[in-house]
Amino acid sequence: MTEFMGVKDTARWMSTIGVEPIVSGLVEYVEQDFKRWNEFDKSPRVANHTPLGVMELMPTCDAELYGFKYVNGHPSNPSRGFQTVVAFGMLAEVHNGYPTFMAEMTLLTALRTAATSAMAARALARPDSQVHALIGAGSQSEFQALAMRAVLGINEVVVFDNDPDAMAKFARNLAPLGFKVTVAADATEACAHADIVTTCTADKSVSRVLKDGDLQPGTHLNAIGGDCPGKTELDPAILDRGPVFVEFPPQTRIEGEIQAKAPDFPVTELWKVLDGRADGRTSDDQITIYDSVGFAIEDFSVLRYARDQVRGTDYVVPIDLIAEPDDPKNLFGMISVLSPVS
Amino acid sequence: MTEFMGVKDTARWMSTIGVEPIVSGLVEYVEQDFKRWNEFDKSPRVANHTPLGVMELMPTCDAELYGFKYVNGHPSNPSRGFQTVVAFGMLAEVHNGYPTFMAEMTLLTALRTAATSAMAARALARPDSQVHALIGAGSQSEFQALAMRAVLGINEVVVFDNDPDAMAKFARNLAPLGFKVTVAADATEACAHADIVTTCTADKSVSRVLKDGDLQPGTHLNAIGGDCPGKTELDPAILDRGPVFVEFPPQTRIEGEIQAKAPDFPVTELWKVLDGRADGRTSDDQITIYDSVGFAIEDFSVLRYARDQVRGTDYVVPIDLIAEPDDPKNLFGMISVLSPVS
Repeated sequence: MTEFMGVKDTARWMSTIGVEPIVSGLVEYVEQDFKRWNEFDKSPRVANHTPLGVMELMPTCDAELYGFKYVNGHPSNPSRGFQTVVAFGMLAEVHNGYPTFMAEMTLLTALRTAATSAMAARALARPDSQVHALIGAGSQSEFQALAMRAVLGINEVVVFDNDPDAMAKFARNLAPLGFKVTVAADATEACAHADIVTTCTADKSVSRVLKDGDLQPGTHLNAIGGDCPGKTELDPAILDRGPVFVEFPPQTRIEGEIQAKAPDFPVTELWKVLDGRADGRTSDDQITIYDSVGFAIEDFSVLRYARDQVRGTDYVVPIDLIAEPDDPKNLFGMISVLSPVS
Repeated sequence: MTEFMGVKDTARWMSTIGVEPIVSGLVEYVEQDFKRWNEFDKSPRVANHTPLGVMELMPTCDAELYGFKYVNGHPSNPSRGFQTVVAFGMLAEVHNGYPTFMAEMTLLTALRTAATSAMAARALARPDSQVHALIGAGSQSEFQALAMRAVLGINEVVVFDNDPDAMAKFARNLAPLGFKVTVAADATEACAHADIVTTCTADKSVSRVLKDGDLQPGTHLNAIGGDCPGKTELDPAILDRGPVFVEFPPQTRIEGEIQAKAPDFPVTELWKVLDGRADGRTSDDQITIYDSVGFAIEDFSVLRYARDQVRGTDYVVPIDLIAEPDDPKNLFGMISVLSPVS
């Protein structure tokens, strides 16, 4: 039977094991999958756009496993008392198409996004990085901070958000975990002494949360909040300050920060850096930019990791998805054996 | 919370209510949705093809509801002890993207395929039709026979399959339900006195289960087994014997019987016949052909119908898919409230 991990069980798993230990394991799964990039069937996501939001399906598969995620994006949801994003996903065996694992993916997406950011920073930031600036203190922010500490040992965080309550929430969540949290007056101040900057704002608009000049030489930038057409975070001039790394160029050119640039704007695929086929950072005073939009392979990695970690535990329950009549040609027998009505 | 109907509960629902009453209600939902065809966002299905089979996602939405189906197709599964097709689907609210209903769809797909066939026959077959020939006695066959009786009152069935065990199974399932079942020696004999012919064979190949000349004047043909590239059932000459009706031409030209014809082969969209915008049958001795491949709107209709019928009953159970922290910006709070680990 298919195993299912719901929201409460996912939260209990993350709470019991801890976000940092989970991210430490997950980041190796994500990197493993990035390093075998060409083994994946990379279909485009399929999106249904409506006046209030978008609903998307993001599939991918390798030779053994198929995975997909359903995810919506409704920017006006919070003002009406709903979550912006609800997501779930599943894995199926490629050899027979049977679903084996299904899970909520609102929490799992936060994990995979944070793990991917940390993986990119491990590959592209200066090895002596000590200060992490977060622009945006929304639902992704704590996960980003925890992942960066789990993978790079960075304990010092500077945060800016134009919502003071969100910054207070961020500090309240992280201070008890031993982080040194500083609240900045604006994004420029947040970046002034940062080695790694993460932009993770939520507004669906062409924003300029970072101005050209905000980033100091040697900074690595993870720009993760600009992730769909019409939703960007950076002054486009920043993209000329250093090499730009992306997940899957055909998707990033539509959804990422580079949508503001020409179709032939030069980018490097992150998997090639991880695999040693392309240069990452080439000097200590370089600015490096990871223009991340979130890709199906990251969802695949976190589903695979979660499945491997929770299989057979009480974090999962069986879900009755697979119809198996004794005789494959006698599907009707599943009904008629119950009672002989038509 | 999202409601979920699993395989056993779907079988129990169908067994308790009966396939014919369910199809009688469902066919009205399908026709309602076909008649408002242009209100749907008709995305192409997204398919991941692998050596042993295909895994597909089929989404659609109107102004209020979004639905999708996951379905695989692995022709070699039965020989390895697995089902050819496993499917599940879900409905979400368009205004906020929240999933509200999820269900197994192996049984539901059999229902929607049968209901759509009966709807097409109601629109296109001679009103005095009395004999239904089924070519193929596999997992769809009993549902096709029951739907045709539910909607058109046809009690007399002639069956042919090159697997005698499958024909015996078909007769064994239907005779107790009051059907007059005749077993034919071949497809030509099965069609000789039929008013409606349904081809529902499973082989993934370019087959000729019907030869040109098998169909008598005045017959309506539902060709439902030819439904993907390289999988057809008819001698292409049959398609010149009368008007051909289809679901969604861009999909049918790739997947249907008309893949054997030129890209501009004339077809009529079935929804236009139901809506009165196009002619259906224009004389009693005409052969009419419905080249059906299965379309996302039919899955949408059956999900909508099942949801309306089982909502709040014990056929459904809650499934924990929606993460709702008290403060939308404090997703991390869902974890930290459980225990103060990182």
